[in-house]
Order: sequence, then structure tokens, then C-alpha cells
Amino acid sequence: MSDFRPVPEVEKHGEFLREVVELLFKNVVFTTRRDKVLLWQTPEELEKQFDFGLKQHGDDQEKLINLLRNTIKFSVKTGHPYFINQLFSGLDPYGLAGQWLTDSLNASVYTYDVAPVFTLMETHVLAEICRMIGPEWGDGLFCPGGSYGNGTALHLARFRRYPDIKQKGVGHLPRLVVFASEECHYSVHKYAAFLGIGEDNVVSVRTNEVGEMIVEDLEEKIQDQVDAGAVVIAVVATLGTTVRGAFDPISKIAEVCQRRDVWLHVDAAWGGGLIFSQKHRSKLNGIEKANSLIINPHKLLAVPQQCSLFLVKDKEILHRCFSRGAEYLFQKDKHYDKAYDVGDKYLQCGRKCDVFKFWFMWKAKGSSGFASHIDTLMDLAEYFERQVNNRCDFAMVSERQYMNVCFWYLPRYLRGKGDVLRHSPQLHKVAPQIRAVMVRHGSVMLGYQPLKQLPNFFRFVSQNSSLTRKDVDFILDHIAEIGDALFK
Amino acid sequence: MSDFRPVPEVEKHGEFLREVVELLFKNVVFTTRRDKVLLWQTPEELEKQFDFGLKQHGDDQEKLINLLRNTIKFSVKTGHPYFINQLFSGLDPYGLAGQWLTDSLNASVYTYDVAPVFTLMETHVLAEICRMIGPEWGDGLFCPGGSYGNGTALHLARFRRYPDIKQKGVGHLPRLVVFASEECHYSVHKYAAFLGIGEDNVVSVRTNEVGEMIVEDLEEKIQDQVDAGAVVIAVVATLGTTVRGAFDPISKIAEVCQRRDVWLHVDAAWGGGLIFSQKHRSKLNGIEKANSLIINPHKLLAVPQQCSLFLVKDKEILHRCFSRGAEYLFQKDKHYDKAYDVGDKYLQCGRKCDVFKFWFMWKAKGSSGFASHIDTLMDLAEYFERQVNNRCDFAMVSERQYMNVCFWYLPRYLRGKGDVLRHSPQLHKVAPQIRAVMVRHGSVMLGYQPLKQLPNFFRFVSQNSSLTRKDVDFILDHIAEIGDALFK
Repeated sequence: MSDFRPVPEVEKHGEFLREVVELLFKNVVFTTRRDKVLLWQTPEELEKQFDFGLKQHGDDQEKLINLLRNTIKFSVKTGHPYFINQLFSGLDPYGLAGQWLTDSLNASVYTYDVAPVFTLMETHVLAEICRMIGPEWGDGLFCPGGSYGNGTALHLARFRRYPDIKQKGVGHLPRLVVFASEECHYSVHKYAAFLGIGEDNVVSVRTNEVGEMIVEDLEEKIQDQVDAGAVVIAVVATLGTTVRGAFDPISKIAEVCQRRDVWLHVDAAWGGGLIFSQKHRSKLNGIEKANSLIINPHKLLAVPQQCSLFLVKDKEILHRCFSRGAEYLFQKDKHYDKAYDVGDKYLQCGRKCDVFKFWFMWKAKGSSGFASHIDTLMDLAEYFERQVNNRCDFAMVSERQYMNVCFWYLPRYLRGKGDVLRHSPQLHKVAPQIRAVMVRHGSVMLGYQPLKQLPNFFRFVSQNSSLTRKDVDFILDHIAEIGDALFK
Repeated sequence: MSDFRPVPEVEKHGEFLREVVELLFKNVVFTTRRDKVLLWQTPEELEKQFDFGLKQHGDDQEKLINLLRNTIKFSVKTGHPYFINQLFSGLDPYGLAGQWLTDSLNASVYTYDVAPVFTLMETHVLAEICRMIGPEWGDGLFCPGGSYGNGTALHLARFRRYPDIKQKGVGHLPRLVVFASEECHYSVHKYAAFLGIGEDNVVSVRTNEVGEMIVEDLEEKIQDQVDAGAVVIAVVATLGTTVRGAFDPISKIAEVCQRRDVWLHVDAAWGGGLIFSQKHRSKLNGIEKANSLIINPHKLLAVPQQCSLFLVKDKEILHRCFSRGAEYLFQKDKHYDKAYDVGDKYLQCGRKCDVFKFWFMWKAKGSSGFASHIDTLMDLAEYFERQVNNRCDFAMVSERQYMNVCFWYLPRYLRGKGDVLRHSPQLHKVAPQIRAVMVRHGSVMLGYQPLKQLPNFFRFVSQNSSLTRKDVDFILDHIAEIGDALFK
């Protein structure tokens, strides 16, 4: 878009973009509680109401604006305070500004000369986060999601043990095994399959009643595998499990790993943001003992999708493992120090810039801003748990460990009955039905799931620090109201 | 951002975002030829001039606006017509509008209820592209880059042959090999290492004088590997190689693959966009015979970073290979058909929405708009080649196959000398020196590289259809002027 287009066209585009921005301000960016979280349509209904079809000729600007309007109309407002469905939510104005600038510059971050500011910014952010973890920590990557970071860790663990796999592959190796708790993220299994390790070689370690890995079970199972001739390459510990927000006992696990000379990877995608909170940082104690870890600032810190960091202690291993030195990109005769061409240590080639929005939010809020965001959310989760415990129509699934509040709504016939698990089959049907009503109303989006032997339960988890205690009361009352009507 | 914040704060954020948008309009979005492509600073200089540091407390809005201004000032304007450095460039107003809306909705695309519009949009776009390839084509994925798509293909090829690797891993398998031309993208090797296949098991097939895979060499090398006891799992053919833009002879390669029952993956990241051009589509003839392919709309079609499609013929294999059915996300008791929860067929979990900008550009331009974009670019590349051939101070490296024009600038002492390759060591130094001057001027960003035995040469390749013949003349004259001054 420049003077190489005729002036009227530039003006037309300018006007159009201004209209788009106004539309976004009016309909998405400044959502209020009076708006719905979503306008529910089944897939079949949406197909009828929305013009998805792609044609030979373009639409005029009026039609295009209408398409934008409808896209917003039928989309979920993830920035709405009552979107409490995932491990991300909220819409930070500085994060959004960062995204819009990133899009306008449309960079790919691989060489310094193509993305000078973003390259140095990545280096600064990674160095600062490493410093916050521990003095020995060395390097990192920006990843397209936490799954990818977990996969990278498994591969590095294997590579450290058998560096020649880069050239030779893994065909000549003994059976390799990885350990993770039974409440770990499913990406450990998906990537184990992808990397050629195999899902069966991810050994599930049992968790206790609040969801933490049982270290004794880990030790026993490691011994079993060693006895069976397998080579243990990695243990994946989770800090902030997806469903219950449990924190595996990292120091004890690290001790086992050190004794066995096994790579310890920490999946702190959800919990890792606590590193900013003086008050709650201690939940991460021992994290510095790991070999690698992931933190997703797009989760707890409410950075826009996606921003996912992989960090590693060994300063050299990423280059050793991933570098290939493609000469059309990483030319050897550049007019600056090619150590700044960070792309060669990545598995990815073209890579969207994910650092700017995070860096800019950090500049806008300071570390203290992230800290108070976290502390506010933790207070709110505590309040939520207290309310659940105070009411007879709700029950906690297990004690809250973090932001995740896992609870059941109890229909009348289950209240005051003691062990609700004796009524699992009935209880299992409650959450999905209540949720379906809320989604159809567009009032609240709240996730639920079963876990191990536990029947379906709700998980309250917010990353939007604008939620208040009044919101918590509203959400509980709203669920109770629907539940009372459904289950007489 | 909503009524859960005090009104003055919402107003403050609103004003701030408006100021940001104006800044973007003024300094990035509507770049003109009078602007520089970049304001070059060495990493050391940039470190001094730019306030990268992260602090305890946030900056005020005036400072923040200044940070945005400086980020733009020191960043490369990839939308500038003289950014011809990569396989992406240009800034489409509809693509940008699509990105800004995507960011405002901040969705993750895995389940229908969280991203209803984007889910169905992905289905429509994938179905339409599949239809354009061939009637048998079935399914696809949106990937974080083409490398990831190539990796996915290798894994699927292996999985098709040995479905039990999902559970058991690859430890019990014979040595697996993959074939690709010596000019293929480096991601084939990087992902072979990552997947446990090993770089040594990517067999390089020789290319001819214009960069196409030599099928006889492929056949011989397959036989050699089979004789050596290896199992051939995939051939990767490239349509539009990175450097020379060569198209491997896909039909002949497909015949070899069919005869050997080997998975054929086509890396059409760069060439695949031609599917929109009636005039040039025939360069993709035979593509329908592949098992899988990748197309990056963010390359030829100038969709903003990133938009990368992986497509596969077999309608079931993605689910079989990647599905895991995590119950906290893909609950079995949802109030709609869970076939619409596309996330389970992905290796990724959280996934940024990459479809909207592409779909919206398609709506705005129509298929015919993409076609004329391509045809304009191809005409321009043809003109560029003609000018190179007409001038005594330039020489083509090899005949142009596509948009890529690979050429040398010839210093005086090399002109009219016949075979310039006898002067390779001198010629090798020319392009880097000229480029360094252009980058320091900020006038033009143009890539160069060596290839096989060929010394450094420039690669002209544009995805910005606003470039004119006058621009081509300017670029060549500019190089010549610098070259004349440097090499007397």
C-alpha cells in the first residue's frame, strides 16, 4: 500500500481500514457485561446464516464490511469477563496495540537484517526470563504453542543422550521412555508419537488426591523400565496442570532425575507466569533444577495468542541440535555478526513475530503490573473456592492448588449426602446440561470435564484480572438458577 | 477492556489505541517509495539507540508511543516495493484488516464452540483448495509455517506404512529413508532429524542445470537404498524451489512413487499459489497425483504472515494419526456434533486463527484477483529476465523457471568474457558487497546466496504486484551504479 498504487486507491484503502478499526472498537475491543459472550448457532444454522462461499469475483466494500460485522456477531468474545472456558482470556489494550503493530510490519524473525528490532527484543526477553529462573539458564525459543515446546524438550533430551541421531536417526537405539504424570498435558503423548518414541513409551505416573505426581511411583516405574531394558530419556513435570492446576513436587523429581542422569523438562505453560509474583513465586521453587521448561505468557499473563516460550539451561544445545546453516538465508559473508541470525537454532524457518506484544505489555505494566494481575486473580480464585465451600448447592472436587477451581453443582437430591461419588452416573450428566443452557443463552462460557474416576465437573479459571467478587457471585448464582430449573 | 474497568480507564485505552492506529497509518501501512526500506543499524548501534530494557514499573503513554515509533523506525518495511529479500512481501489492506480483526477476537481454533465462525471458515477454505487440486483430495491443516507441513508429511508417510508407531515408536523398524532434490528446502532435513529419521537418511537427488530433480537419479538411488535394506517411505518433490524457483517433474516422480508404493509429498509452499492462475496453473500439472502437499498463501498470494496449508488426499489419516481425544477439550457429551471440533486431528493444541485474513482477501479479490496478481508478477519476472539478458553488466545464473530471477552483476573486468564461472572466487564476493551498500543506504533489500558450485548471485523475487517495470529498471540501475563504484 503505497504511492505505487493510484492515489484514489490508497484513499479507498485508508477509508476502509478506518471503518474496520471503528467497527472493531465498537463491537469487540470494548466489550461490556451487557454484551453476550456469544450468539450460539449450531454448525448447521451458522452455515445457513453466514456467507462462507468463495467466488470468482470480489465483493464490494459494503459487503466486506458486512462480512466483518457478521464474523464478529457470530464469534465468541474471548475478551468478555464471562469467557472462562480456557487457559486464556481477556484482551489487554497494550497487547492488542502490539499485535496491530506486529501485523503492520509483517516480519518473519530469522535473520537480524530482516527483523533487527524484533531479534534483539527476543534476546532481551529470553535473557530476562532466564535471569528470573536461575543464573545458569541460557537460551530459549519462541514457539507456536506449548505443545511444540514440550515436543522440543523431548527431542533435546534424546539428542543429548544420543547426539548422532541428528544424522543417523533413532533406528539403532534401544527402547526410549519418557515419564509424565497421569494429569499431564496430552501434547507429551502426541509429540512422543510424532518423534518416533511412541505413546506406549510415555509412562504415566500416578497422581495424589489433589493431582500432584507421586514421586515414589515415579521411582518404582523408572526402575521397572530400566529392568526391562529401556533407556529413560526424560521426565516431564507439570507446574499448573490443565484441569486441576496441580504443581508436581519439582525438587524431589529433580533429585530423582539427577541421580539417574535424566533430562527434566518442566511444563509450566500455565503455572510459569507466577515467576512475576513475589507473593506466589514460591510455587515454582526448584524450577531452576530442570533442564528445560515452557512458559506461555498467553495464558496466565494474558498476552494475546500466541506467545509461548521454551527455555533451556544448556546454552549450546539448540544450535547443536537444530542448526543447518542454509546458505540462502544464513549467508556466511554478511556485513554483521551472524550470531544475531537466530533463525538457525530453530526447527521452524519462517516465523511470525510473537515477542513484541509481550515486550510491549511488559513495558506498559512493568513486572509489578504482571505481579498485581496475578495476585488479583489468585485472590479471586480463593474467593471462588470459599463461596463454593460456603454453599450447599456446590461442592469442591479437590482442594484448590492454584487458579483452577474444580467444582460440582449439586442438584437438590445430592445435597448433604456426604460422598457424592456414589452418585457419579447422575452427577456426570449435570455439568454438560447446565453448560449447554449457558452457551445457548450466550451468558457464560465455563469449561467442564471428567478426570480419572471423577464425573464431569466445572473448572473455573480466569486470566482476566478485571473480574470482581460480584462476578463470581453472579456466575455461581447463574449456574444454580439453571441447575434448579433443570434438576428439580 | 470493558465496563468492568472504570470509565476513565476505558477512555484512556480507547484514546491510546486510536493514537496507535494513526501512527501505523502514517508510518507503516501507507509506505511510499520516498521512504527507506530500512534504517540500517548494526546490532551494537541498535542496542545503544533503543530502550529494550524491562523494568519493575510501567512507562507512561507518551513513552509507550515513542517506543512504538522507534520500533517502526528501526524495523524493515516488508511492505515496501523494494523489499525483495524473501518469498514474502507486500501488505494487502484486506489481509491487514483480517489480521486486526483476528487479533481483536483473540481466538484459539480447536473446538467449534470456542471458534464457530473460524472453524467453518477453515473447512470451507480447505475444501475449496482441495477441490482445485483434484476430486480425490480430502482434508488439511493450517500450519505454523511450511517447515511444519513438510514434517507432518514425513510423519504421515511413516505412519501409513507402520501404523503401530503411534503407540510403539520406531525403535523396531528397519532404516527408513526419504528422497528429496539437492535444492529442496532445508526443513526436510531438519524434520527428518526431529522425527528420528536422521539427516543421513534424507537422500539428495541430483538436479539438472535449471534446478529440477533428475528422475533417473531418483530411481537409481531408490534401488541402491532398497538393495542396502532400507525402506523408502517418502519422496519430497518441490514445486518452486526456494532459490531458483524450479519445478520438479511431478508426473514422472509420481509414477516412480506409485510403482514403489511410496508416499509422494509435494512442497509447493512457494509454487502452489499458481493454482489460482488459469495462465500458469499448468506448471502444477500432476500435483493431484501426490499424497500430500503444502501451499503457503503467505508467499505467492501475499497473505500476511503466517498462512500455511497442509493438504492430504486420504480423508481419514489425520484423525487416525493425531487424534487423542483429550476429554477436557473434546468432551464426548457436547450439545453439538463433535466432528466439528477440528482440534483433535492436529498435533498442536492451542492454535492461532490463520484462516480469516486469507478468506477475507479471497472475498475481497475473488479468485480472479489472485489470478491477476500472479499474472502481473510473472510478467514482471519475465521483464526482469529480459533486461538482465539485454545488458552487458548482468548475466543470468540459469534460465528463469518461475518468479525467481537469479542473476549476477558483472564487474567491468568480467564482462564479455564468456564463461564467468572461471572467475568464481572473484564473482563470489560481488553480491555481498553490493548488498551491504544497499542495506546501509536502506534503498533496496535484495537477497543473494551461493548454490551448489555457483558463486554468490542475486535472487529477484517479488510477491508485491504493485511493482512496475520502472521499478525493475531502477533496481538494476541501482545495483549497477553501486557495482561500478565498488569494482572499478
